Amino acid sequence: MVTGGGGFIGSHVADSLLAQGARVTVFDNFSTGRREFVPRDDRLRLVEADLLDQKKLDLEMRGVDFVFHMAANADIKDNLKEPRKCIDQNIVATQNVLEAMRAAGAREIAFASTGSVYGESAILPTPEDAPFPVQTSIYATSKVAAEGLLTSYALGFDFRAWIFRFVSLLGPRYTHGHVYDFWRKLRRDPSRLEVLGNGQQQKSYLHVGDCVAAMMTAIDKSRGAIQIYNLGHTDWLKVDDSVKIIVRAMDVSPQIVYTGGERGWVGDSPRILLDTTRITSLGWKPTKSIEESVVETLAFLEAHPAVERRD
Amino acid sequence: MVTGGGGFIGSHVADSLLAQGARVTVFDNFSTGRREFVPRDDRLRLVEADLLDQKKLDLEMRGVDFVFHMAANADIKDNLKEPRKCIDQNIVATQNVLEAMRAAGAREIAFASTGSVYGESAILPTPEDAPFPVQTSIYATSKVAAEGLLTSYALGFDFRAWIFRFVSLLGPRYTHGHVYDFWRKLRRDPSRLEVLGNGQQQKSYLHVGDCVAAMMTAIDKSRGAIQIYNLGHTDWLKVDDSVKIIVRAMDVSPQIVYTGGERGWVGDSPRILLDTTRITSLGWKPTKSIEESVVETLAFLEAHPAVERRD
Repeated sequence: MVTGGGGFIGSHVADSLLAQGARVTVFDNFSTGRREFVPRDDRLRLVEADLLDQKKLDLEMRGVDFVFHMAANADIKDNLKEPRKCIDQNIVATQNVLEAMRAAGAREIAFASTGSVYGESAILPTPEDAPFPVQTSIYATSKVAAEGLLTSYALGFDFRAWIFRFVSLLGPRYTHGHVYDFWRKLRRDPSRLEVLGNGQQQKSYLHVGDCVAAMMTAIDKSRGAIQIYNLGHTDWLKVDDSVKIIVRAMDVSPQIVYTGGERGWVGDSPRILLDTTRITSLGWKPTKSIEESVVETLAFLEAHPAVERRD
Repeated sequence: MVTGGGGFIGSHVADSLLAQGARVTVFDNFSTGRREFVPRDDRLRLVEADLLDQKKLDLEMRGVDFVFHMAANADIKDNLKEPRKCIDQNIVATQNVLEAMRAAGAREIAFASTGSVYGESAILPTPEDAPFPVQTSIYATSKVAAEGLLTSYALGFDFRAWIFRFVSLLGPRYTHGHVYDFWRKLRRDPSRLEVLGNGQQQKSYLHVGDCVAAMMTAIDKSRGAIQIYNLGHTDWLKVDDSVKIIVRAMDVSPQIVYTGGERGWVGDSPRILLDTTRITSLGWKPTKSIEESVVETLAFLEAHPAVERRD
C-alpha cells in the first residue's frame, strides 16, 4: 500500500513498485494528491478515502504486506495557520495506519519524514544522531511524533520501520514548495518577484527519482527493526541562486523584492544540509544536480499548468 | 491554572502556588487524580472536566496568566495496551491547552515532560542536548510531541515555555510506579515478590517536593522563550536495592521472583540518569536522598491505603 499515492512522492513510489512487479494499493483522499498522478495499471488498485476513516483503512489493509506511508499534510510554511491539521493528518493518521497494519498482520513500513526534524541544527551537514533538536514547527513536531510511533511499534509489536528524513524534493509532479511558489508568482507577474526572507537561506534539494531510488536501496539492503536515513544532496542552493536559475529558465527579468529576515517564515530553518553518509554507504548517490532538478521541475510545471492551485 | 492539579505532581504544584500567594484553578478529570489531593483553599477553584472538552477549557482559561500543564496519561509501562490513549491525552490535550491559552491571551506554560524522551541513551548522565534519540514508547513519543507543540507555539505565537524532563518522582500522594507496585504486591502476599526484569535496572528518582522546588527555581530565574531542564537526582538506585529498602521498611521477607530480561517492559530504559548541570547551575539541588524518598513514599502509602487502585 502506498498512502498518499496520488501525491508528489507517493505516485513515484507507486511507479517504482509497479516497475518492480508489485501489486499496489494507492490510498489517497486527493486533498492535495491528484488523480492524474496515479499510475494506470491493472496491478494498481485505487482507494479514494481518508486515513482518518479507520474502518475503511482496516478493510483495505487486508492482504497488504508492506506500507509506504507517504500521505501527510506537507505544508510546513503555513502550519501555524491551522495548528490542528498536522496533529490529525500526520500523527493520528499515522497511528491509524499502524493500527490497521497491526490488525491485518502487516509489519513493514517505510515513512516519509523530514530533515526539518533537526530544527535549526548547529551541525551542518546534520547527521541522523545530531543533538536532540528543539522543534520549530508543528509540521516537524508531527513528523517526530510519527517517527516515534513507528519506532514504538517496531519495539512493541515487531514492526520493521524505515524512516526517511528528506530534504525538499524536486522533479515531475512537484506541486508545492519554493520553486512552485516562484513559478506561480512569475506567471502572474513576470515584472516582480517577492522572496520570503533575505534570499540567503541555503538548502539542499533532491530529485524525487533519486529519493525513491534511495528508499528502495535502503529497504533492499537494511533489515534491522529500526532504520533511520537522511536523504539529501551533498550540494545545497541559496534562494538567490535558485531565483537566478528560475528567472533564466522562464526568460523573465523581475524586480526582486525581499520580505526580509533570515527566515522565510516562522519556524523556517535557514540552512538545511543533511549528512547522507549512512545512505551513501549502501551504494546510493544522487544522479542529478540541484540545478538540473530545478530546471526539470520548471519544465514539468510549464507542461502541466493545470497543477496550479486556485487558492 | 494547574492541569492535573488532582494528581501526584499537580497537587504539589497547587500547594506551592497557594503558598506563594497565587490564585489557582485546578483543572482535572480525576481519571487518575484524586479529589482528596486537591488543596482546600478559598483561592483555589476546582474544575472537574476533561482537557478534550475544548469549550470548557476555553471558558476556564479566561483570566489565567500561567499554566502548569501536569495532566497526562502517565502510564509508561502499559502504554502499548491502549496505543491511542497517549495520543489523545498527551498530544491532543496539550494542543487544546495551547489553543485555549492562545484564545485567552495566556502565554506562559510549564510542562511536565519525561526523561524517557532520551530512549536508551548511550550517554549517562544524559544531558538535554544528548544525541537525537530513538523513541522506545508511545508514552515518551507523546511527550516529545507535546514538547514540540510548546516550542512551536513559543516561536510562532510568542509563548514562553518551560519544559521539565523528570526522572520518576517519589513522595506523598505517589500512586503509581515501581514502589507502589511492590508495596501493593507485598500487601497482598508478603511471602513472594515478582520483580519485572532482572532487578539490575538502575534509575534516578527525585522527591516530588524537590521537583516542584526545581520548577519554581527555573521559572523564577530563566526567562527565555524556550527553556528545557532535566530534573533528577545525582544519585540512582538499582531495582534490587529498592527492593531491599522496601522489604526492610515493610518488615517482610518475600521470596524474590524475577520475570527476567534487562528491561521491565517493552520500551523500558534499563538505565536512567539525567545530567542536571543546567538546573543545578541556577542554585537548586535535591534535599532528600533517594532512600529517604522511598521510605517516605512507603509511609504515605501505609498511612493512605485507600489510594490503592481496585484494578
